[in-house]
Amino acid sequence: MNPIQLFDAESSTYTYILAAPDSRDAVIIDPVDRNLERDLAHIERLGMRLTHVLETHAHADHVTSAGALRALTGAKACVPSGCGIPPAEVQLQDGDVIPFGGREHIAVIHTPGHTAGSMCYLWRGNLFSGDTLLVGGCGRTDFQGGSAEALYDSVSAKLFTLDDATRVWPGHDYKGQSVSSIGWERRHNARLANRSRADFVALMAALNLPRPKLMDVAVPANRNLGLAHSV
Amino acid sequence: MNPIQLFDAESSTYTYILAAPDSRDAVIIDPVDRNLERDLAHIERLGMRLTHVLETHAHADHVTSAGALRALTGAKACVPSGCGIPPAEVQLQDGDVIPFGGREHIAVIHTPGHTAGSMCYLWRGNLFSGDTLLVGGCGRTDFQGGSAEALYDSVSAKLFTLDDATRVWPGHDYKGQSVSSIGWERRHNARLANRSRADFVALMAALNLPRPKLMDVAVPANRNLGLAHSV
Repeated sequence: MNPIQLFDAESSTYTYILAAPDSRDAVIIDPVDRNLERDLAHIERLGMRLTHVLETHAHADHVTSAGALRALTGAKACVPSGCGIPPAEVQLQDGDVIPFGGREHIAVIHTPGHTAGSMCYLWRGNLFSGDTLLVGGCGRTDFQGGSAEALYDSVSAKLFTLDDATRVWPGHDYKGQSVSSIGWERRHNARLANRSRADFVALMAALNLPRPKLMDVAVPANRNLGLAHSV
Repeated sequence: MNPIQLFDAESSTYTYILAAPDSRDAVIIDPVDRNLERDLAHIERLGMRLTHVLETHAHADHVTSAGALRALTGAKACVPSGCGIPPAEVQLQDGDVIPFGGREHIAVIHTPGHTAGSMCYLWRGNLFSGDTLLVGGCGRTDFQGGSAEALYDSVSAKLFTLDDATRVWPGHDYKGQSVSSIGWERRHNARLANRSRADFVALMAALNLPRPKLMDVAVPANRNLGLAHSV
């Protein structure tokens, strides 16, 4: 039961649609503002009814369409409680379960590290890992309460302990890599596999990444569900 | 049971991996030569075993990696019998069924029009429509034995008669549209819905599209499963 994976070429962001097999209901994860029409077209063409919009965190590189999708479809906006997104009606906590489509359940896993509030979502053996765990890598940890120590602990304790066959659907990829598995990432992830916590922290501290160009626009916008920007 | 959808940004080609739910076996449809390593990485990361490589037709805009994948994995190359691809061991006919992964079956549907030999593949309610039916459109019909009349008849008689909920996974898209449904395309496809055969033929004749840049390289290469180019 794979999700439908959509791509934003400008920010290399993946958006996911999870379709309940026994109903018309569907959930979208991390939608991007400039793809609003495209994403709504998918909902329409597949005869789906959008019930929830989920964010994995307050993104620094693109603006969400969560607020616009909520206004246009009536879907509930569900966000990590620690991300400072007050307009969302559902403030998720670690261990929460989001029911949808009659018999579907999405498990909420708090994975601080990329940002303090970052969450991953687990549905039918599919992990939506946001920027916590990427294919062969991980998100940066140098802003928004990010912490290399926390990311290492989140991944080690909460993600690499999932079943090996769990499919990992990342929040971004820059090389056309769409999906991975927990087993492969635990054994081969270039940053996290076979590395001590101290080594990982040193590696992340040495990255010296540039500040995201859109950060000062995107983060405040995303804390308002993108409403200042997308409608 | 959605496929895994992979994208080639250079030619806007979609490649699909169909994973059997009850085994490690998998099938790939329309792989692109320059993505060979990427596609093999997906097979490896998900612990899959590639058993079949399928082509929907002899492409004019990119070169397949079918021959290379066959050499590297032992997968069988399966091609439409009318496409002139002699090195493939399985020459498919309309109505054939390709079994894989123990309990999976792919139905083969001959849909001449984009090219004389073009095939679509149907698996678990998912139609892999190649360049016969695109999201909101269709492939061109002006070379390789293409025929607007034949495409209209193929789509009307063999695709639009499938269940409305059948998901349509196209061979290309240029606007980030990943998937559609038979019901929506029958009602709303800009070229084919609510249009007579004569009107469609006139519309296609008036397109005056430029010759594909890679055609003289790609078609001969694809008739050799891409082997002259990708390995």
